[in-house]
Amino acid sequence: MTDDVEVASPPDSAPRHLAPGDVGIVASRDFVCAQPFTFKSGQTIPGFTLRFETYGRLNATRDNVVLICHALSGDHHCAGWHSATDKKPGWWNNLIGPGKAVDTRRFFVVCANVLGGCQGSTGPSSLNPATGRPYGTAFPFVTIRDMVRSQKLLLDHLGVAGLHGVIGGSMGGMLALLFAIKYPGFTRRVLAMATTARESAQAIAFNEVGRQAIMQDPAWNLGDYPKDGGPRVGLAIARMMAHITYVSDASMDRKFGRRKKETAASDAYTFDVQFEVESYLRHQGQSFINRFDANSYLYITRALDQFDLAQVYGSLEAAFAPVEAETLVVGFTSDWLFPPEQNRSLALALLRAGKRASYAELSTDLGHDSFLLESEDLYTLVRGFLERDQPYSFDYAI
Amino acid sequence: MTDDVEVASPPDSAPRHLAPGDVGIVASRDFVCAQPFTFKSGQTIPGFTLRFETYGRLNATRDNVVLICHALSGDHHCAGWHSATDKKPGWWNNLIGPGKAVDTRRFFVVCANVLGGCQGSTGPSSLNPATGRPYGTAFPFVTIRDMVRSQKLLLDHLGVAGLHGVIGGSMGGMLALLFAIKYPGFTRRVLAMATTARESAQAIAFNEVGRQAIMQDPAWNLGDYPKDGGPRVGLAIARMMAHITYVSDASMDRKFGRRKKETAASDAYTFDVQFEVESYLRHQGQSFINRFDANSYLYITRALDQFDLAQVYGSLEAAFAPVEAETLVVGFTSDWLFPPEQNRSLALALLRAGKRASYAELSTDLGHDSFLLESEDLYTLVRGFLERDQPYSFDYAI
Repeated sequence: MTDDVEVASPPDSAPRHLAPGDVGIVASRDFVCAQPFTFKSGQTIPGFTLRFETYGRLNATRDNVVLICHALSGDHHCAGWHSATDKKPGWWNNLIGPGKAVDTRRFFVVCANVLGGCQGSTGPSSLNPATGRPYGTAFPFVTIRDMVRSQKLLLDHLGVAGLHGVIGGSMGGMLALLFAIKYPGFTRRVLAMATTARESAQAIAFNEVGRQAIMQDPAWNLGDYPKDGGPRVGLAIARMMAHITYVSDASMDRKFGRRKKETAASDAYTFDVQFEVESYLRHQGQSFINRFDANSYLYITRALDQFDLAQVYGSLEAAFAPVEAETLVVGFTSDWLFPPEQNRSLALALLRAGKRASYAELSTDLGHDSFLLESEDLYTLVRGFLERDQPYSFDYAI
Repeated sequence: MTDDVEVASPPDSAPRHLAPGDVGIVASRDFVCAQPFTFKSGQTIPGFTLRFETYGRLNATRDNVVLICHALSGDHHCAGWHSATDKKPGWWNNLIGPGKAVDTRRFFVVCANVLGGCQGSTGPSSLNPATGRPYGTAFPFVTIRDMVRSQKLLLDHLGVAGLHGVIGGSMGGMLALLFAIKYPGFTRRVLAMATTARESAQAIAFNEVGRQAIMQDPAWNLGDYPKDGGPRVGLAIARMMAHITYVSDASMDRKFGRRKKETAASDAYTFDVQFEVESYLRHQGQSFINRFDANSYLYITRALDQFDLAQVYGSLEAAFAPVEAETLVVGFTSDWLFPPEQNRSLALALLRAGKRASYAELSTDLGHDSFLLESEDLYTLVRGFLERDQPYSFDYAI
């Protein structure tokens, strides 16, 4: 059940996918669950598919597994290259590979596209077997718990006996925490970054504006649209706005400042692109609509808004009561979407619940997306947390 | 040329418009300039109208004038009531009136809707005399300087000999600063709040997403739409998003938190309104489209983005070189659109340019809109700055 990716020693000026430390060319696979799946909402689908990738080898005791959980717009392709001509590797390629912070020589890494997504896993753009047409808004409402349950079924299918660790940033951090709550004997280490036990009103507000941009686009058509159509304008607007919340004022100022496009010099008075930041945002919107389904955006943002551990369990401490894993929470100083305080409060609640937990705060200016940062500090944290054999103790003070 | 508004002593349980301290019932007037007006862009219109209001009386020396400058979505109706049945008074009614911080027993207060606006002043929704149809995007590009120049023409028309003070928050602060730069002998005190010498990349980015929401709405039709039509969906989206930037995470959490609408209790799984903050935002969007023109939104946000004193004059100190006014800049700790640092840097640049300037920072959690706050601290600052006869000196340290 493992992907055996052998990385040859590359010659000088080798293609990047042959670089040492990269998992090289990888292929996605599909886990097809033919059993009915009942969502937290009570709705049922007759079966589902999760698209996933694995890197490294499952060991004899089947417990050297590191599960990677992606964020809202991420997918299962978190390391390596799909072909030698790919322009970009998987989204967490800097972190995962032979000899990297998540060392695929030691760990069997699994990453699946979430249920409700649109990158190969079953979601609202999938065909509804009852009608032969896409589910659209007939797809059941998805929660973080549903995502976690479906990924546990995948891990069972792969013969995984236990998770050495589960790692996720943003929404992925919510999944990681819920793995520890729902499957305590199965989950030994949790590393949650740039995440929250529940979104603030401001985060819900941004998601709501994005949803309104999509649902008010006439092409949304109550969620019933062809594969190549749909509310592309609304989805692009939603993504442009959301992207602002993923970065920081400081990083945008450093990257773009108030620089203007050269083409605009002769025409200072226009509603067309003038500032580089405008061009960048429009590109973010346009590239997103080519890879993401608008209904999935609605479903997954709703799952984010609904996630509220304290509300479900009575308190955060009660939510964490069953946890057996040791947990490291990492917050980033410039993250204003899920700010450091919200991350710190997770670790504090775990400690109050009598669990082993640490909190590290990294000083960055990249905003929420700092968890994707190329940072030796972050790599050291991740490697240290995954690789030490003794119960984890940190010199980072809370 | 003054509005003589006499406020009778009200009986107990008097209507609010008769409350002591209120200017009472007021009427807007129109200044019609029949002379051609050439914009900074070089484009010319044959004439323009500014809708304005005044409160108090112009004194014999015609220099007891306080000019109020409104923000992006504000207007000329900043105090008093248009009728006894109005639900709300002017937008700065808490600040302006007999005995209030801007005391209309002493000052002659003037406030005009900006050129390019849509509340009675000439803007893209006005009829183009050359075609008999609305200007639409044939309206010249407007800058903060154009707004200031046109308001100076209004003040000349009113016979004003000099400004005792000019006060503005957000965009209004930009106008106030530019009054001091462009008309130094005329402008004696400047009070700029929650403003900036130039927007950051993030602020431009938010404006750009709003513009895209409008311009990508098919009903925008390149700016050519009927008075009651137009890109209402796009404008509502733009406003919902912008509104988030006007408040703060803390104030939204205090006001709404994660509270859900009662009607949603029975249906936890819906894309319709679930959280109170969603309902509030939708209301913000819907009420805005009934009072604001989408093209004006494009023009005025562009004017905001373009405003860059250092770029125009070489440096902020050079920009402020002609200033004769004394200036008070007020920043608000929770303002993340035009943060305190940007306000403080204005006062510092004025001091470096050898001018009389002070900076005060008020600790609030209401975000950018804190300048509209009911705050005795703010009233004391404003009154103190306007009323002391000696050159102003502050015990607030920079």
